[in-house]
Amino acid sequence: MKSFREATAVDDDLRADLDPQWAIGDKLHGGYLMAVLARAVAVRAPLPHLVAMSTTFLRPPAAGPARVEVEALREGRTAGQYRARLVQDDGPCAEALVTQGTLDAAEPWWGRAKPPELPAEEDCQRLPSDAPGSPFTVPLLDVVEHRHDPAVLGFAVGRPSREGRVAGWLRLVDGADWDPLSLLIATDPAPPVSLTLGVTGWAPTLSLTAYVRRLPAPGPVRVVMHSSEITSGRMDEIVEVWDARDTLVAQATQLAAVRV
Amino acid sequence: MKSFREATAVDDDLRADLDPQWAIGDKLHGGYLMAVLARAVAVRAPLPHLVAMSTTFLRPPAAGPARVEVEALREGRTAGQYRARLVQDDGPCAEALVTQGTLDAAEPWWGRAKPPELPAEEDCQRLPSDAPGSPFTVPLLDVVEHRHDPAVLGFAVGRPSREGRVAGWLRLVDGADWDPLSLLIATDPAPPVSLTLGVTGWAPTLSLTAYVRRLPAPGPVRVVMHSSEITSGRMDEIVEVWDARDTLVAQATQLAAVRV
Repeated sequence: MKSFREATAVDDDLRADLDPQWAIGDKLHGGYLMAVLARAVAVRAPLPHLVAMSTTFLRPPAAGPARVEVEALREGRTAGQYRARLVQDDGPCAEALVTQGTLDAAEPWWGRAKPPELPAEEDCQRLPSDAPGSPFTVPLLDVVEHRHDPAVLGFAVGRPSREGRVAGWLRLVDGADWDPLSLLIATDPAPPVSLTLGVTGWAPTLSLTAYVRRLPAPGPVRVVMHSSEITSGRMDEIVEVWDARDTLVAQATQLAAVRV
Repeated sequence: MKSFREATAVDDDLRADLDPQWAIGDKLHGGYLMAVLARAVAVRAPLPHLVAMSTTFLRPPAAGPARVEVEALREGRTAGQYRARLVQDDGPCAEALVTQGTLDAAEPWWGRAKPPELPAEEDCQRLPSDAPGSPFTVPLLDVVEHRHDPAVLGFAVGRPSREGRVAGWLRLVDGADWDPLSLLIATDPAPPVSLTLGVTGWAPTLSLTAYVRRLPAPGPVRVVMHSSEITSGRMDEIVEVWDARDTLVAQATQLAAVRV
């Protein structure tokens, strides 16, 4: 089993080998694909850290060889802006706008966000990759440990919470600490909010925007995701990621398609 | 004074004439520039409505001639995805990823968002374009009426609320009803949250992502914007826009630079 770093590696020509392990059913995970794109940007960018990234998903790539095209749009002293595109079989699979900068672990100058209320990690339940009754396996859950608040897990026993909220503790199974690139995985946690509303099936991301706010502390992160509404087959999902030091490390918002 | 439609017009070659009226100080407004980009996409796209848009701002364009380059990334039956780029003097000023689709005015299939609590429109205070003591004028406020909750206006008399929230009623002064393109203006309201925290000065948007959730009803919209935190010179701003029928019509999130 490859580590996160190995699974998202790109060579000097920005060629990647997409790993089937980072998938929901047979579809590669959106946060994983974003991490591959962001790693390619980091190869080219003089500034060290991912700060913001908006990705639009065009068609699901297959596991295996792919390449990334990176174009610098503007490079300044404190921020660099890039376009990155994931290409397979000469067709684009995803395109992203990326802002690169420098992160630190500073306290907020001002803040009003509060960490999610969540039972202790050991009192949360690990999602299995091969749940009984699930229409597909989720190989991602064997490389990213998801321990969810029992309050959100009613869907697993046919009693969806209907609260439109997912919350839990995440760790990389390879034992690595979180970093700005792996946080992209945490900004797109499983399952989609729609599952807690009784809507089974894949909820493909149309567009995902993530901000990395600071360098995360070692240890697990807590993730909370909620939706505002599902309308005309589209669902928003808004995510906060908090580190073990109780600071906000990443935020995200996505628009996904759902069949209701 | 040009109407919103005139000020954001593009010809068949996607040439625009950027209007100095839609500005904060001498900088053209981010939501206005996004509306010009989105109108150019609508010229090319077979599907009628803007659904999602992520824009990265590279350098502030000047008022006057500019052109938009649009590339179709994928066109499907229910969604089209595009890249749009605003170019002036042969240099890019902003680049966006745009999802086009079909909107309606349907009730949510499921929702948990609630309209903002706000005094009646007539009990809110209109922001002037030329406020006494302000370091610059805000010509935008003469074309987009902003009537703010008095609770957020302490900054205007030297007593910033420090709540990190901006909320008010918005109308287009030209009398037009809101539409998916003009809602982009409402997703980037004045002033930035930082001003309510006592931080004067421009807060340039690095990246703004907006989702249009449905066709808005006639009448004013209510806008509520809050920030989670300001850290290392960067501020997030999360916006909801509600129409006169009490339905959520747009959502946005942006990352802006602030000097604290």
